[in-house]
Amino acid sequence: MLPGKKIADTNLAQKGRLSHEWARARMSIIEKIVVGKDSKLLEGLTVGFCLHVTKETSVLVMAAKRLGAKVALCSANPLSVRDDIAAFLQQEGASVFAWRGETAQEYRDCIRQVLALSPQIVTDDGGDMHAAAHRAKVNSIIGGTEETTSGVKRLLALERSGRLMYPVIAVNNARTKYLFDNRHGTGQSTLDGIMRATGMFLPGAHVVVCGYGWVGKGVAAKARGMGAVVTVTEVDPVRALEARMDGFEVTTLLDAAPYGDLFVTCTGQTGVIRKEHFAKMKDGAILANTGHFDVEIDASFLYSNARPEEVRPGVERFDIIVAGGKKKKKLYLLSKGRVVNLVAAEGHPPEVMSLSFANQLMSILHVAKNYEKMERKVYGVPEEIDLQVAKSALDAMGVRIDEMTEEQKKYQNSG
Amino acid sequence: MLPGKKIADTNLAQKGRLSHEWARARMSIIEKIVVGKDSKLLEGLTVGFCLHVTKETSVLVMAAKRLGAKVALCSANPLSVRDDIAAFLQQEGASVFAWRGETAQEYRDCIRQVLALSPQIVTDDGGDMHAAAHRAKVNSIIGGTEETTSGVKRLLALERSGRLMYPVIAVNNARTKYLFDNRHGTGQSTLDGIMRATGMFLPGAHVVVCGYGWVGKGVAAKARGMGAVVTVTEVDPVRALEARMDGFEVTTLLDAAPYGDLFVTCTGQTGVIRKEHFAKMKDGAILANTGHFDVEIDASFLYSNARPEEVRPGVERFDIIVAGGKKKKKLYLLSKGRVVNLVAAEGHPPEVMSLSFANQLMSILHVAKNYEKMERKVYGVPEEIDLQVAKSALDAMGVRIDEMTEEQKKYQNSG
Amino acid sequence: MLPGKKIADTNLAQKGRLSHEWARARMSIIEKIVVGKDSKLLEGLTVGFCLHVTKETSVLVMAAKRLGAKVALCSANPLSVRDDIAAFLQQEGASVFAWRGETAQEYRDCIRQVLALSPQIVTDDGGDMHAAAHRAKVNSIIGGTEETTSGVKRLLALERSGRLMYPVIAVNNARTKYLFDNRHGTGQSTLDGIMRATGMFLPGAHVVVCGYGWVGKGVAAKARGMGAVVTVTEVDPVRALEARMDGFEVTTLLDAAPYGDLFVTCTGQTGVIRKEHFAKMKDGAILANTGHFDVEIDASFLYSNARPEEVRPGVERFDIIVAGGKKKKKLYLLSKGRVVNLVAAEGHPPEVMSLSFANQLMSILHVAKNYEKMERKVYGVPEEIDLQVAKSALDAMGVRIDEMTEEQKKYQNSG
Amino acid sequence: MLPGKKIADTNLAQKGRLSHEWARARMSIIEKIVVGKDSKLLEGLTVGFCLHVTKETSVLVMAAKRLGAKVALCSANPLSVRDDIAAFLQQEGASVFAWRGETAQEYRDCIRQVLALSPQIVTDDGGDMHAAAHRAKVNSIIGGTEETTSGVKRLLALERSGRLMYPVIAVNNARTKYLFDNRHGTGQSTLDGIMRATGMFLPGAHVVVCGYGWVGKGVAAKARGMGAVVTVTEVDPVRALEARMDGFEVTTLLDAAPYGDLFVTCTGQTGVIRKEHFAKMKDGAILANTGHFDVEIDASFLYSNARPEEVRPGVERFDIIVAGGKKKKKLYLLSKGRVVNLVAAEGHPPEVMSLSFANQLMSILHVAKNYEKMERKVYGVPEEIDLQVAKSALDAMGVRIDEMTEEQKKYQNSG
Repeated sequence: MLPGKKIADTNLAQKGRLSHEWARARMSIIEKIVVGKDSKLLEGLTVGFCLHVTKETSVLVMAAKRLGAKVALCSANPLSVRDDIAAFLQQEGASVFAWRGETAQEYRDCIRQVLALSPQIVTDDGGDMHAAAHRAKVNSIIGGTEETTSGVKRLLALERSGRLMYPVIAVNNARTKYLFDNRHGTGQSTLDGIMRATGMFLPGAHVVVCGYGWVGKGVAAKARGMGAVVTVTEVDPVRALEARMDGFEVTTLLDAAPYGDLFVTCTGQTGVIRKEHFAKMKDGAILANTGHFDVEIDASFLYSNARPEEVRPGVERFDIIVAGGKKKKKLYLLSKGRVVNLVAAEGHPPEVMSLSFANQLMSILHVAKNYEKMERKVYGVPEEIDLQVAKSALDAMGVRIDEMTEEQKKYQNSG
Repeated sequence: MLPGKKIADTNLAQKGRLSHEWARARMSIIEKIVVGKDSKLLEGLTVGFCLHVTKETSVLVMAAKRLGAKVALCSANPLSVRDDIAAFLQQEGASVFAWRGETAQEYRDCIRQVLALSPQIVTDDGGDMHAAAHRAKVNSIIGGTEETTSGVKRLLALERSGRLMYPVIAVNNARTKYLFDNRHGTGQSTLDGIMRATGMFLPGAHVVVCGYGWVGKGVAAKARGMGAVVTVTEVDPVRALEARMDGFEVTTLLDAAPYGDLFVTCTGQTGVIRKEHFAKMKDGAILANTGHFDVEIDASFLYSNARPEEVRPGVERFDIIVAGGKKKKKLYLLSKGRVVNLVAAEGHPPEVMSLSFANQLMSILHVAKNYEKMERKVYGVPEEIDLQVAKSALDAMGVRIDEMTEEQKKYQNSG
Repeated sequence: MLPGKKIADTNLAQKGRLSHEWARARMSIIEKIVVGKDSKLLEGLTVGFCLHVTKETSVLVMAAKRLGAKVALCSANPLSVRDDIAAFLQQEGASVFAWRGETAQEYRDCIRQVLALSPQIVTDDGGDMHAAAHRAKVNSIIGGTEETTSGVKRLLALERSGRLMYPVIAVNNARTKYLFDNRHGTGQSTLDGIMRATGMFLPGAHVVVCGYGWVGKGVAAKARGMGAVVTVTEVDPVRALEARMDGFEVTTLLDAAPYGDLFVTCTGQTGVIRKEHFAKMKDGAILANTGHFDVEIDASFLYSNARPEEVRPGVERFDIIVAGGKKKKKLYLLSKGRVVNLVAAEGHPPEVMSLSFANQLMSILHVAKNYEKMERKVYGVPEEIDLQVAKSALDAMGVRIDEMTEEQKKYQNSG
Repeated sequence: MLPGKKIADTNLAQKGRLSHEWARARMSIIEKIVVGKDSKLLEGLTVGFCLHVTKETSVLVMAAKRLGAKVALCSANPLSVRDDIAAFLQQEGASVFAWRGETAQEYRDCIRQVLALSPQIVTDDGGDMHAAAHRAKVNSIIGGTEETTSGVKRLLALERSGRLMYPVIAVNNARTKYLFDNRHGTGQSTLDGIMRATGMFLPGAHVVVCGYGWVGKGVAAKARGMGAVVTVTEVDPVRALEARMDGFEVTTLLDAAPYGDLFVTCTGQTGVIRKEHFAKMKDGAILANTGHFDVEIDASFLYSNARPEEVRPGVERFDIIVAGGKKKKKLYLLSKGRVVNLVAAEGHPPEVMSLSFANQLMSILHVAKNYEKMERKVYGVPEEIDLQVAKSALDAMGVRIDEMTEEQKKYQNSG
């Protein structure tokens, strides 16, 4: 890292602005939150964001800025930075430390740079910034929010061990987040990323989806919707049963390995696709990960057993002999095993991010107002925030719904 | 009610036996629970069941009996009794008070008859028996279980007000119950009931599904799966948004009323389809309810404004002029507005009831063993029961799934 | 057959009338054809029908009668007769020779009785009446129509060999017939029949669909729509490829035999499910045929190797050891291997039959008017009839569509 | 056009080679045709191709070359040329006249350049080269093939008027072409193109699909599969009815205009989306065409009434007031109204193009062998070619299917 490096190229700011404007037009519910609020609500506060640096994130960051906050931003993934967005946000006065292709060391440094600005509120995606803040004992922080399942898991472990330093709102647990962002947002953008990277033909392809949480549900449903024959693997018997009754074939990954044309990991786990699975795969199988961290596919095994050749942007071919195999076969790894929806496509579409980020923004406002009354715990998103986000989204779509009658309210509360 | 009347016709026992055996063969996971257990686990206890008297219920009741319990049974719905099953269970030594077509008074009397046997454990579906036990202060009861969302709501109200007399396990809240029973079981059997009653053509039909809880989700998905054009109505904005992103049209019932060919209520609410909706419906619209109680469609309005003619079994035609309308139109009400999947078809298929009833049976065993340590609260189904039910079901289907590696277990627990 | 026996029970006429009226209300496009036409168009002609004797057929028969024809009717399948409909039609003045459960001999006799009335026009379903007319050289006939793929195949063979005696319109080949009737009508009613017969749980069940013609496409799509995991078998490579790209698993029946929970034959072929397949099936497998003839499943093998026990109406259980197997297993055969949608349910819903029968009725009128100009050939339905049927159906559903602009008409005809 | 300009940049050849190899690996059925054949089959012939210059096309062109032909190529669309592929093919010895962004004049000149080489066989996509060959009376041509519906329509017009100069095989009419290419290939790549261009969120979006031919069927099914709420418009009543029974809302474009978030034209017609539709659209509506010619959306109206701003690559925003409207609204046009799947994405995936191009290649071989026996007519693809392509494709996927038994063959041929 060059000392003082912050972003890739300030000249990309205008391109970033167009992109920001496109996203903002499709995220009108964020706009409404800002418009409806006193613009001094975040005055005097610095908000540190560790998010994928995308056009959607720029809408959240700019909204926080318009509400009076100082804003600082680094990336939640070294490969997911849109350099034009970074440039645009810097031009608009945000402190940005992010560029596409950071090394692991640079990635950590960028997080530290944001924390060095002594934020009061920390908004994270994956928990790396929360973890760094705890390691560095950053004591300016009055509260935070967290976007992902993976991050919430880490925060709950901190809470259980009594080491959590500040209240955190688990935005991931809002119904308007996990029901839409993880399932539909990741679902669509994962297929989008795979199609952009490979142009592979989905109708009739055997797609193996590893994991049937919200993300896996979304990927599996949409892959089937495109015409693929989908098999699901799971370790949780209830989810496995759910997948089967949703009409998917369910089996072990070892049994599915020989016939998959495409494998997509969506587990939040480590070491899901391993040597023994590579060994049984057929020639030409394609491997993609859409979980937060790049540990779901054992890419290091591939890299240490064959020289990758980039046959299309983001598609590496490994000519490899695994285990007792006799013939070389080709395996294709997408995006080096990193989140394929962010690396190969643009991540979640703005419309769905507007739900998650409306929760983020309202949760930031909630922390700013109520932090003194909050404990060092992981909180859910307050239900009134959740409902208001849903209502705004329906409004934006022009959907009107019924309201309960007085008689129904009474009935609901009766014994 | 004739004094001492218990069931409709003892001669139906053999027919009931064949039906019981068919169900038992498709509910092998219940069998495995019984086989694996000491047959004296319920010895000395009387279990009072208030359930739909179906072939599937007979498998649960006989399993409890084989585990040593005395068993008594009444129906959770006056129209859902299979008289052959009632006869079979009586012949097998159960105390049965149930027949198809009980009056409201008889229905309540049957519940009282079961409670008069001083059961220790009460297993209910809808909460009417729990309510009656509380009104009558039946003090033999050491604990209970409850099958439905509607019933759990009533028990929670009792708990909140400090009046709950014994611990109850909310079987409805088990993942292996609500993820399958409500969505897939009710989903399939509701369409089955509607097709048996009407034979209506679903491809291209406009189906309006009121409510997008688990039942509504199941009905909507399966109606679409049959080719219908589905519109969803909801009062909860998050669920409404969910329906829309699942690809359904969402609007108010008033707006949907004019174009629906079929309306299905799945809300657990009262007064969902009302006069103002009837007024806007088109000639020939069909009305079905699959919620627990017959209050979702305002049938009383129909009955008091037109003379019903039964044009097919369970299908009543109302030639009616509503509100400012000038011309008579025909509206068809199925099963008098009662749960159409139970009245017009056979209720949930045995395969899915085996999940719910495995939870019931293991919860009954749990209460029998642990009641002294339990508080007067509504409990969830213990997670180990839930997982074991899922595993048994996968086994029964011949599905094998992955297990977490040691590395993954460690990863999951790490911060 | 009792000499002179015609129908089962004249007392069922009133029940049949209600059923007829229900169907007529749902088949409004037939009504419109009749209303719009001079009621003497068929005067002086006798139309002989060999159709499934259902409420929908009664609407067609009565429409022909209202247009001035004498009408005579026998059944296209010994098990598909609705006795109440037969009684109703007889009461209305039709010559009916049909009852449920005819023997093979009686079935043929009934056809002969209709032909003995010297019909001018013959409307058949499956080709048995056309075949009988050719064998008996019935020379009153000026033309005919045929409803099914199977029947058309037989007529084309007659045409090829130069033996076809009169012109026949292949109603099956109308787009408004095969695109809807075979796929959606048979698709829905087949699942309806299977659910009525067995109540089996479709979500997560392995369903093997044999044949991927229009009927197989419909059954497969709707089974998946209910949540089943569907495998398709085919002998035509193009259709097999089609099934796979529609997202279905495709393999040989021998490979699919071990895991199917339900097998449905839709091939129009003979000997599709045979001894070698039975041998590999699992305990409890269910077998249903929805093709026209009862030759698709080798039922005679089952009947000659085990004593069937009827465990539910229309469900026979065979406890059987096949081939090298050691343990007895249970196989269930529905409706004795006959068309399950007609035997176990009510056949096609009236809404879809109204399309087929509108084609039938307009084709009968076409023959009556144009027979002198027609050759002894199998004709398609004239395109203007097809389009008019589609328009009427859209009207009945309240669907408005675009019309081509003048510019577009010109463009379409340009080179 | 610079005199003698042929391609954009010879330096792109290596990039094109990698792309060609990726495609070839996914189009193994083409390989098998070549390998199985005498490499002199096309010796002495020049084949002139007018196709989209994509990696898939390069596999077809190289296969013809390996079979002995001289090959010449121009583009079937000025915007669909991959310049790297053009460079690669030129390097490999093909005569290539194609670059991205040809003017209309250059586009026609390129076609003339290919015809100037006096090809014996002409393989076209859309019919522009056939039309030019007829205008220029190129008499070297012994026969041709045509890829699209649009092109076949033009050739049939020539045939009807007696002006067709040589036999043409309508590859479009092969079952292995239209059942897969048009529906699944265009279906997937159209959504792929729209997602690449806009990143728009499909779940819950209102998508209006104009036209329900094979392409429309594919786009509608896959849009629904991604979670969109889909409305279909049609001018053919039978297709409209088909769409409705497939579960889609069907209405006029004027009625659908106000609520569509995305409009996709798939009609093969002209002037489908016009001023009166723009007038009723909502702010932010997105317009895409996937039909062959750029006449389906009236883009010239947009260009002449507002200044387009390119807000993302291939996405032009028009701030426009239409008709009696008072407020400006934004409409977004993708790819200037040209085939969005080719311009914004990569066109059909190689796996599906391998079906179409296997038909092309075998049809070229068929013409080369049989042209003397063929008339000046539009022929279908011989059925044995069709079946062999399907078998090869199943083989490539590892799918085994059943074969007819002797008994079944006999049964099929019986009367």
